[in-house]
This record gives sequence, C-alpha cells and structure tokens, in this order.
Amino acid sequence: MSEEQKPIASQEPSQGGPAEPSKSALKKKAKEEEKAKKAEERKRKEEEAKAAKAAADSVDVAVGSYGKLPLHQSQDETPKEPLKRLDTVGPNDVGNTVLFRARLANSRQQGNKMLFCELRQGLVSIQGLLALNEATEGRPLVSKQMMKFCAAITLESIVLVEGEIKPVDIEIEATTIKHFEVHISKFWTAIAVNPLPVQISAASHAAVADDASEEAKKAAIGLDTRLNHRVIDLRTATNQAIFRIRSGVKHLFREFLDARGFIEFETPKLQGAMTESGASVFKVTYFDRPAFLAQSPQLAKQMIVAGDFERMYEIGPVFRAENSWGPRHMTEFTGMDIEMAIEHHYHETVTLLEDMLIFVFHGLNKRFGQPGGEIEWVRKQWPSEPFVVPEKAVRLRFSEGIKMLRDAGREIEELEDLSTEDEKTLGRLVKEKYNTDFFVLDKFPLKIRPFYTMPDPNDERYSNSYDFFMRGQEILSGAQRVHDAELLKHRMSLVDPPIDPSIMKDYVNAFEYGAPPHAGAGLGLDRIVQFFLNLPNIRLSTVFPRDPGRIAP
Amino acid sequence: MSEEQKPIASQEPSQGGPAEPSKSALKKKAKEEEKAKKAEERKRKEEEAKAAKAAADSVDVAVGSYGKLPLHQSQDETPKEPLKRLDTVGPNDVGNTVLFRARLANSRQQGNKMLFCELRQGLVSIQGLLALNEATEGRPLVSKQMMKFCAAITLESIVLVEGEIKPVDIEIEATTIKHFEVHISKFWTAIAVNPLPVQISAASHAAVADDASEEAKKAAIGLDTRLNHRVIDLRTATNQAIFRIRSGVKHLFREFLDARGFIEFETPKLQGAMTESGASVFKVTYFDRPAFLAQSPQLAKQMIVAGDFERMYEIGPVFRAENSWGPRHMTEFTGMDIEMAIEHHYHETVTLLEDMLIFVFHGLNKRFGQPGGEIEWVRKQWPSEPFVVPEKAVRLRFSEGIKMLRDAGREIEELEDLSTEDEKTLGRLVKEKYNTDFFVLDKFPLKIRPFYTMPDPNDERYSNSYDFFMRGQEILSGAQRVHDAELLKHRMSLVDPPIDPSIMKDYVNAFEYGAPPHAGAGLGLDRIVQFFLNLPNIRLSTVFPRDPGRIAP
Repeated sequence: MSEEQKPIASQEPSQGGPAEPSKSALKKKAKEEEKAKKAEERKRKEEEAKAAKAAADSVDVAVGSYGKLPLHQSQDETPKEPLKRLDTVGPNDVGNTVLFRARLANSRQQGNKMLFCELRQGLVSIQGLLALNEATEGRPLVSKQMMKFCAAITLESIVLVEGEIKPVDIEIEATTIKHFEVHISKFWTAIAVNPLPVQISAASHAAVADDASEEAKKAAIGLDTRLNHRVIDLRTATNQAIFRIRSGVKHLFREFLDARGFIEFETPKLQGAMTESGASVFKVTYFDRPAFLAQSPQLAKQMIVAGDFERMYEIGPVFRAENSWGPRHMTEFTGMDIEMAIEHHYHETVTLLEDMLIFVFHGLNKRFGQPGGEIEWVRKQWPSEPFVVPEKAVRLRFSEGIKMLRDAGREIEELEDLSTEDEKTLGRLVKEKYNTDFFVLDKFPLKIRPFYTMPDPNDERYSNSYDFFMRGQEILSGAQRVHDAELLKHRMSLVDPPIDPSIMKDYVNAFEYGAPPHAGAGLGLDRIVQFFLNLPNIRLSTVFPRDPGRIAP
Repeated sequence: MSEEQKPIASQEPSQGGPAEPSKSALKKKAKEEEKAKKAEERKRKEEEAKAAKAAADSVDVAVGSYGKLPLHQSQDETPKEPLKRLDTVGPNDVGNTVLFRARLANSRQQGNKMLFCELRQGLVSIQGLLALNEATEGRPLVSKQMMKFCAAITLESIVLVEGEIKPVDIEIEATTIKHFEVHISKFWTAIAVNPLPVQISAASHAAVADDASEEAKKAAIGLDTRLNHRVIDLRTATNQAIFRIRSGVKHLFREFLDARGFIEFETPKLQGAMTESGASVFKVTYFDRPAFLAQSPQLAKQMIVAGDFERMYEIGPVFRAENSWGPRHMTEFTGMDIEMAIEHHYHETVTLLEDMLIFVFHGLNKRFGQPGGEIEWVRKQWPSEPFVVPEKAVRLRFSEGIKMLRDAGREIEELEDLSTEDEKTLGRLVKEKYNTDFFVLDKFPLKIRPFYTMPDPNDERYSNSYDFFMRGQEILSGAQRVHDAELLKHRMSLVDPPIDPSIMKDYVNAFEYGAPPHAGAGLGLDRIVQFFLNLPNIRLSTVFPRDPGRIAP
C-alpha cells in the first residue's frame, strides 16, 4: 500500500478506559465477612465487566483499517506489489491475504454483525464478507464504526479491499467467483461517488419492445438514456463482453491477412474532392477552402495497389452524411477495407474473404464462446440463437437469389437492388436450404454498383461484384475494380450526372501509370459485431455512436 | 494461364513457305549428264536454302508467345496454378519453367540477338534474358518480331513472363536476385503504360540540399513532385521498405499491449464540442449544426477507462487545424493512444511505455534490419546512423534536462517549454552522456500542460507528465490525468480563458460517476517512423500526407 493510500480513520478513537477500582478490607468478623466479600467481589467484577463493555463499545478497534483515501496523486514511489486481479483468484489463493481494487457493485447488511458485498472488476466479481469482531484473535478486527462506514458507501464507488480468500460450501449465485469469498480486514474508498443517475443493474436489462407492459417499460432503460450515460452503461457485463468481442474481430481480421502478406495502411480522411459519387459527404472548412471527409478509403486503397503494394488493408473511420436513423446505420462507423491484386479471376478475392470471415467466426466462438464467456454474457441481455457458421461459404449468384425470392412469392425486379426486407427474407430462405447464417451474393447488376466496378465479361447487365450477408443483412460490399484508365473514364461518363475525370485526376492517373487487375471489399466492423451477436441496434456495438441526432458523448 | 490471358499475337504469322521444287531427268548421256546433274542439284539446293532462309526471316516462329493481353475481366474461371512470386525464387527452382507477373523495371537490347531486362515485384527483382532463337531445339523459340515487340515495351508496364530459372556464374548487380536469372520463353504485356512523368530511378534518389550543385538539383526530384506523383513514388524500393516498416511499428505496438490485457477501441472523430482547449480544430457541417474533428481521442479514452475498461488503446487519425508547414507537422496524422488505470504510481505507465518502445525498436531491427532488408533499402536513399536503442530507457526529470542545457551554455527558462532547437540539443547531450537515441523527460512544468494533467503532489510548479524523444524529437506526450471531478473543474477554471465545464458535461460526468486513477499517452506513428529512419520530412513516412497546402492526392 502506498503512502498516499495510508488510510485516515473516519473517527478519532475515544480516549481513556474503565476507572481503577477502589478496595476496602475488613479484619473483624472474618468468616461472616468472607462471605460478604465474595458476594461483593462478584458484584464488583460484574460491574467492572459492565463498565469495560460500555467502554469497549466506544473504542474503535479497527482504526487504520478503513476510511477514505486521499486523492491519488502518485505521492509515493517506493516499489510495491501489484494489486490482486480477481480473474486470477483460484484454489491456490485460499488462506492468502490479498489486496485489490474494485467497484462496490452491491452491498447488504445482515443484522448489525455482517455485511455482504459484491466487488467487481470488469466481468469478474467476488463476494466480500465483513464480520463484526472487536476482540477475537485470529480474525480481522472489525468495529461497529467500520461496519457503519462500509455500509454507507455508495454503490459504484471504487474501493480498496484487503482480506483473506476462503472457500465456501455452497456456490455463490450473485458473483462470477462461485467457490471463494474474501473475508475483509480492510476497506477503503479510493473514489467515492454520489448515487448514479442510471443503475448498472437496470442498464443490464434489455430494452423492451413497444408493446411491452407498462411495468416492463418503466423498469427498462431506453437506448437514448443508455447512450446518454454511456460511461455507466459500459460497465455492465454485457458491454464489457461486447467490446472484448469487437476487439477480437479486428484481431482475427488482421491475423488472417497478416499471414497472407497484406500490409496495413492509413489513408487520409480529409479529401480535397468528393471521393465517390452517390453517398453524401460531410463538408469541412480546410483553412480557406472546402474539403470533405472520406466516405470510404476506396480511391486511396486502389492507388496504393497501383503503387505496387499488391495486398493492403486498413481499419479506420468512415463518414456518411446520410440522414438515416435506422438500426443499422450511423454517420460514422469503422470500416475494415481490403484491396488486392488478382491473378486469374476475382473469385480469388471472394474466396479469400469467405475464408477470412469463417476464420473470424470460428475464432470468436473459440475465444469468447466458452461457458460463462463473453457471448453468453451478451445473450443474457440480448437473447439470440448462436450464429451458424458453414463448413464452406455458400455463394449464390444474384440472379439465383432473385429466383429464390420470386419462388417464395416476392415480386421483385431482376436488375434492381434488394430492399432490406428482401435481404432478410433471402437470409431466411438460405438458412432453411443451406443451414447457414453467412452467405455470399455474387454478380450484382452493373447499374446498381459504383462506376469503378468491373463489368461482367459475358453479360453486360451484370458485374464482377459481390455482397456478403450475416443473418440476412449486408456486412460487406466489394468488386473487381476497373483497372484500365480508358474504360474507367468511359464508365465515369455513363454515371448520371457524368463525372468529370479531371476532378478525380490523381485517381485516374493511377491507372494511366499502370495498375494490376485488382479486387477488394469494404466491411463494416460495427455490423459484424451487431449481427454476430444479433444485437437489435448497431449503436450497441459502438462505444460512442454517431447518427444525425447524436454527436455526443 | 487464363482464357483472357491467351495471347493475341501482335502480328499475323506470314503465310506460305519455300516453293516445291520441280524435278527433271535426262536419260541420255548418263555419265556426262550425271556430272551436270550433280552440279545442278548442288546449285538448286543452294538456291533452296537461300529461299528457305529468306522465308524464315519473315516467318514468326514465336507466334503465341508474346503480345498484348486483352483487358482482364476475369473471363475464365477454370482453376489455375498461382503465379510465381519472385521472393520465393531459390536453388530449387533451377531448371523449372515459371510464370509470373512483374513490372518491367528496365530493359536493354544487346545487339539484335539479346535483350536483358529487370523484372520487379515490390522489393524483389530478377534479371530476364530474351535470346533470339528461331530454330535451335531445346531452347525457347524467340523470333525477331518477338524481340522487337519486347524491346518496345514502355518501362513500368506490367508484363506476364514465362521462362526457365537458370543459375548465373557472376553475381548480377542490378537486381536483388543475384544468382539466378530467367531465360524468357513468353512475354506479354498485361498493362501497357505510356512513359511516366517521373522515373522510378529518379524518385529513388534523395532530394538534395539547398546548397547542392545545379546538376544535382536538376537530377533530383523535389518533395512536392514526389508527393504529386505519389503512386509512382510508392513503387521505389525506399517506399516499399518504409511502408512495410510503418506497418511493423503498429504490429509491434499492438503485440506488446495485447499481451498485457489492453483492449482496442475506436472513438468517434466527429465531436459536438471542441475536445480540448488550445490546438485548433477543423469545423464540420453536421446536418444543420456545427461539429468538429477530434484533435485527439483524449476525452473519449478517459471516459472508456471510467467505463471500467482499465487498459485501452486506439490507433486512428488525429486532426490539427494548425497552419504549420514544418518537417514534422501535418494536419492529419496517425495517433497511437493508450490509457490505463494505475495502481500505486503513474510511473507504472511510464515504465510500460518505455518497455513498449524498446520492444518496438528491437522488433523493427529484428524484422527489417537484416542485411539487404528494409532498413538498409531506406538508408540507400536517406542515409542515417542506426538508431541506438538503450538497454533500459534513460529517464530524466525536466529540471535535469534544463540543467544539462544550461550547463551546455543555452539560456533557457526553468518552467517554459523547450523549443525544437532545445530538444535537439538535449538529444545530442543525452546521446553523448548515455549513448542512446531514445530518452524520457518526466515532470514537466504544470503551466505548459493541458488542464487534465495531474499536478505533482510535492511541488505545485510541476506535474505528473512526460514526453518521450527519439533523436532529440518528441514522439510521445502523456501524463497522469486528473480523475477527480472537483479538481478537474478547478483546473478548468484556471485555464486562460477558463473552460466552462458545461460544454464538456459528458467528460466531467465521467469522473462524477467514478474513475480509477489513470495515466496515458499519445504517440505519433508518422514521427516514430520518421525518426527511427531519420527521414528528413514526416511526409515521407505517410502514404498521402496532408498539410495546409496539400489535400491531394
């Protein structure tokens, strides 16, 4: 324990003790008096005991074992043992005295002699027991004053606790550590808080549907409240799990690509000209001229491939000024982009992406899917069926998808984009037929794809482009790109309104200077997390989401 | 070879061949005539041979072995072998016929019977030999037409080459593969280019100093030209090396932190309010209201720690609207940020960061510092002394740094920030004394640090803050943060002009809700790459740099 953490007792110990007894002796009538004396002594001893007890009641035998720590300003640099991490508590700790810091997640007094509390570190929690003991040796001295102090600490305060790890006979239900508890000898508040505006326990319940009962609605915390108090919300086990899983998606993505010779880049988000037609861009005041936020790294990543980095990827923010409030749209999200030279056919890229996602899904299940693991934690709040990963990806042509939907009775055009509803329906049909939550649509109609998409060589209505779906929702869009400058300019001229190649001079030049045939994709990290866990809203998979109505915290 | 890559000969083969000879026979005067006949036959055979030779000169024996490939539109999906990668060429390939794609980096005809060329894939290159051979069996048939076609291909075109790997007796100087060359049998252009505005060979020379000779200046390519034609510039070995090293820095950074329980986050770059006082921010039009680009993830990362993710990091873009054109400033750069709860002292964080950087430096030297490796490539263009990594980081107090500078004759204030010149001088002094290019200054004056910096507990003129330096230039800035809401508000009131806590409500609330003591740092990825390699300008370590004058490509 550091110097600055030396506890300051909340009360000064009371002074003094029992008065020194006076004694009298009688010499006459010894025998009669012997009896009287014994009776008197008995009485006196009783009184002494009574007085001692009264005095003891005001003595604080736990001075120095509790209180509020001063502000931690790194006052003392003498080397100290690291604090105990609860995720390392095991049978070897039994009988050891440990010192650790934790949130006071819960506390409950039982009579005036016992206090049970729940002490939490991230996803792990342990039961603490504070038992009144003012004299018994071999057990920590815990005074009434200490009990009172501890019982009054506001939940979610950060406390520093010392105690002995003990096994328990009956599994503890409330905490994640089931077979051990800590018998507390010291208890300080490191950071005391006032009661929070949102309770962690309430934030740990799922939001309710519109048609839920009034009581359920009252008890539930809506998405807006949750996001307005995101710092508190992040402490729920659900969010502790979601953001570990999210971090895991990125790690698995990179692990797969690194092993295949991809190099990671960061492309600029500030752009002098709009980077793609179509989607709306945010305008930035760039000194004395306008600039824009990149709505994807599309142009930059193709230019990097033209610069002879034949396999590249990037994980970074993507900005879309679309006034879209839907449950899978945000104005800023995290894009995972790849671009690669192809040799014989763009299906080299499609196969690599399919293998990559299957690798990611298996990796997530392995790392976070164990009993009591992160995925289970998320399901407690947001129930869902496990995400079904296929042996090998199911890849359908767009036209086959249209046929399946028409066979199922949906009236849809052959060369139009699918609606969200169509996509979800197709997801269900594919799942029925192939038992997979993950599939690929290949060969989208040319007219619904961006100008830089390579047309199909055999049927000019289609293109060498693809989307990937999880639970019937799109999480990846990609294509073979036009790598020939002349064809690119021709394609730009066909856009309505046509794009003037001179505003994309650097991009067009990259192909004048020679680029290998290449293909790539943009993946939405937030969506992958959302649909893997089947979260009802993409904002739940993003730490501080942004949409047209939300730009804080 | 795919269907679409089936070569189209650039010329139609000429038709026909030598004429069928007519024969005559005389029966009389056999003996005399026998002689004459023999003489005649001899003569005829000579003529036949002459005619055959003439015919052969116009016959293209290499039809189907060269030409321009049609546009690669993924025409054929029949499975094919992957193309050969030059970085895998070794003794086992001798005698094998390989098919690969490469840039034509150089080509030189020797007489009219030989053509030597340099074929490049990223950092690797091999010598190709095309030898005229119109008849000899056991060697590839190479016609004059084919020679002519190949000799005319513009440098930097992408070619598809088939040939046999052969050992050479004398080391080849021009290419990275020294002991083997490829005897070319087939040669197609996949992507033909026009002559480039900037030559790779020229871009591979260092920019010259202001006082260089006129000839040197003419030959050199300036930074602006280089960046204007970045796609071409990226193909130089120097840049192929720099961006591999840059990718390596990130990998090592994450590897170190992942092993220590850090979780990776992405915080929003769009902010509703300015995130810090001081540095200028870019303004964004966010639907009907103003917004700003985050000038660091500072506030968000502290809020994540308050949300019980006790160890977090982020790699992402950082935006600074500073009108600064210096060699180590850009308006957009890549920040590597960490934030972590501390237990006893903020030096836990300083030690972790020191260990991390030493781990990164050693890792870079190990992965990229081998003979012929990336670091050596960079030094060919940008000569530098190896970066000296210490056994253990040298950590000095700011006040010690001031004393060293004063002892060396510099007149500086005790509590003012160091100028760039001071920093560089201190870097030299530290290197002389401790033989290290990497050191730490701890305990900066409080008044020159941001309001969220924790004051020193013993001397109110100083703070629990630190900068890290490479070759005397700052690459990291960090501190223990104020985690107490009251002290934070007090510190905000002392800024000139004071900050109204209500405009940072969510941030201040994070501490009202209780945050553990914590410390962190922001590192500049671009600068780490710049100073590790001692590049003269930070723009050289960034793929598409941004500054007040540059927002493209």
